[in-house]
Amino acid sequence: MTAYKDRSKEELLQLKEELEAKYKEFQGMGLKLDMSRGKPSAAQLDLSMGMMDVLDSFTDLKCEAGIDCRNYGVMDGVPEAKRLLGELIEVPAEHIIIYGNSSLNVMFDTVSHAYTHGVLGMTPWCKLDKVKFLCPVPGYDRHFSITEYFGIEMINVPMTPDGPDMDMVEKLVSEDEAIKGIWCVPKYSNPQGYTYSDETVRRFANLKPAAKDFRIFWDNAYNVHHLYSEPQDVILELLSECEKAGNPDMVYKFSSTSKISFPGSGVAAVSASTANLDDLRKHLKVQTIGHDKLNQLRHVRYFKNIHGIEKQMEKHAEIMRPKFEAVLEILDRELGGLEIGEWTKPYGGYFISFDSMEGCAKAIVAKAKEAGVVMTGAGATYPYGKDPHDSNIRIAPSFPPIEELIQATELFVLCVKLVSVDKLLESM
Amino acid sequence: MTAYKDRSKEELLQLKEELEAKYKEFQGMGLKLDMSRGKPSAAQLDLSMGMMDVLDSFTDLKCEAGIDCRNYGVMDGVPEAKRLLGELIEVPAEHIIIYGNSSLNVMFDTVSHAYTHGVLGMTPWCKLDKVKFLCPVPGYDRHFSITEYFGIEMINVPMTPDGPDMDMVEKLVSEDEAIKGIWCVPKYSNPQGYTYSDETVRRFANLKPAAKDFRIFWDNAYNVHHLYSEPQDVILELLSECEKAGNPDMVYKFSSTSKISFPGSGVAAVSASTANLDDLRKHLKVQTIGHDKLNQLRHVRYFKNIHGIEKQMEKHAEIMRPKFEAVLEILDRELGGLEIGEWTKPYGGYFISFDSMEGCAKAIVAKAKEAGVVMTGAGATYPYGKDPHDSNIRIAPSFPPIEELIQATELFVLCVKLVSVDKLLESM
Repeated sequence: MTAYKDRSKEELLQLKEELEAKYKEFQGMGLKLDMSRGKPSAAQLDLSMGMMDVLDSFTDLKCEAGIDCRNYGVMDGVPEAKRLLGELIEVPAEHIIIYGNSSLNVMFDTVSHAYTHGVLGMTPWCKLDKVKFLCPVPGYDRHFSITEYFGIEMINVPMTPDGPDMDMVEKLVSEDEAIKGIWCVPKYSNPQGYTYSDETVRRFANLKPAAKDFRIFWDNAYNVHHLYSEPQDVILELLSECEKAGNPDMVYKFSSTSKISFPGSGVAAVSASTANLDDLRKHLKVQTIGHDKLNQLRHVRYFKNIHGIEKQMEKHAEIMRPKFEAVLEILDRELGGLEIGEWTKPYGGYFISFDSMEGCAKAIVAKAKEAGVVMTGAGATYPYGKDPHDSNIRIAPSFPPIEELIQATELFVLCVKLVSVDKLLESM
Repeated sequence: MTAYKDRSKEELLQLKEELEAKYKEFQGMGLKLDMSRGKPSAAQLDLSMGMMDVLDSFTDLKCEAGIDCRNYGVMDGVPEAKRLLGELIEVPAEHIIIYGNSSLNVMFDTVSHAYTHGVLGMTPWCKLDKVKFLCPVPGYDRHFSITEYFGIEMINVPMTPDGPDMDMVEKLVSEDEAIKGIWCVPKYSNPQGYTYSDETVRRFANLKPAAKDFRIFWDNAYNVHHLYSEPQDVILELLSECEKAGNPDMVYKFSSTSKISFPGSGVAAVSASTANLDDLRKHLKVQTIGHDKLNQLRHVRYFKNIHGIEKQMEKHAEIMRPKFEAVLEILDRELGGLEIGEWTKPYGGYFISFDSMEGCAKAIVAKAKEAGVVMTGAGATYPYGKDPHDSNIRIAPSFPPIEELIQATELFVLCVKLVSVDKLLESM
């Protein structure tokens, strides 16, 4: 394959004509496909249907502490749920608080708490002139929405296959007291599928932030979300690394069962040092009498322990793997050697990160939409929706059935080619 | 019965001796009883066990809009749940947003939203020098905790059997722009069991607050929580009254199924004008991808409609009524005519409000605790835990089995007598 950039104007014009004909065909098909969000497919949800049977009207609804889970109370979560989520998050149960159905909500509340009341008795962020967060980019749009909502200035930090640029992270947090946090999806990152290296995790644990209330927001959303039994990424456990480094309070870890059981009806948790958890409890005890303990019980009785979760994740992988492979096969086949895009090949998580030629992403996503395929909005992977290179596109293969996914990807690569040809012709 | 205040010192001293002997007997019984919180009893929770069977692994888990309730999304709640909670709250479904398992959490979030971002684009409360709330007293401690948490100054407004002192409410809100809200439990109020009169509701709807972002926080927690099929309290619907009065945006109504199905695993909702709901949605869409739709579905398929809920509430009433009657019988029998206490006789709700002689409540609660009966802390029904008369005690008959409740109440009246005698002797 000759790279597009090495082709003559005539060749590109001829190619454009062919591509446009193909695009018209797609337009004629009246497609209505969605590759925009990291939603599990119906087949994946079917894997957890057994969970609907574990509690019935004959079930003993007391948790192991003897407490009636139907009633009010138990703000921290029932002991067996703390243990299960502790295994998932890889920390002891005493470092866990169980929340409701959404880890996003836990992250929001944690930032909100810091904003209105401060962290561990320090100045509430709403009373400061300036609060900043570091945002490894490309990253997760809903993280950025939270910090944007609270008027927190976001600073882009480039991602590498080993994690964020740690030279930059270390320098910034040590110099600027206004920097209060960093958003991380450390394993099978959203959208690249990168996993932070051991060195990166250790450098995180050993940060020397200027702000005493600097916190790492460690969203371990994809800890057990492998695509293969081999290879699988592994990651150092940050909470214990922080303890070793003498920084026990520097991290909040977040996780949930959303992409293990049911996305709308999972169980979320936060894990942190005792001091941080006690701080969060002060907020929590005003906010609620307790989260849904029956759903906690439902999860524990269904999965039993981390092995139950791992077995479930193997079944998820069987559904997800062919989808990732189909997308990657098309990208390789259609775009390999053309030098008009690069993409990641993750071993887990929910996304493939695609980088087009500079200045093309918005046009590609628009073109796909015109022909009936919705992608995540270009720019969404950057704070304020502003990708400075206009090149990153998040591909979410999980939700559509595989035949639709293949169609959508074929259209996507066609749009990449078309927009790239136009871009090259423009500069000739 | 001769009122205590009309007895001689000798009579009181002799009485004190008899009462202390009885108290010692109670102490010897090693009681461990709890009348502190408005928790349904196990028998009440058993009423909803059928709800554990409505969803199983063969159930179609799509809502009537065809959306898979297992997956992410539907921030507002599924249509049938909005309709059911709408019926409960007595407003059309389009004025409802469904939340998670706790209406307390919804109230917290609503205040938090106003604090961090303001109401309908007005100045965030955190940017104001002073924010105040009116608090009808005695009232619900968890309401007061929320406003205290956000540093909001609370002003006591006396309650009457028709609702808060509306002359005072009207005067204060029209004069003071710092007053941004009022906490109300308008039907079967906590702790009195009073229901606001039609005139009170209409005066609420016609308030002319100085602050454009003044809101009535209308916690209709006990709307269907009657003790009798006759008499039952009824209340005017405030949202439509506010519309009629040209104040459509002045109220947030809160409700939940906590004391209808399972307190820990119910469904909560807020109801308000379209403008207010849109304002809340701005907050909500950053905070969550959606609440637990399977639990919404579970509730709708179990109760079907308001008639299903009403039938369920009749069964609750059959369990609650004898408990209220037992407590009231003991209060009447033991304290009637003694002029050492007054109490309410509600037709619904979860509480009886008891007023001791001034300066006695703390001592009564402490004395009961010493003998093994936990009451709601004296003062808890007032902002900052400060009852200026030290006289109000909230009695919560719902949770203990009736035999225990009778024991606890017998001890309670004994403590009232003992402390009252001491008080009278002190002043002789």
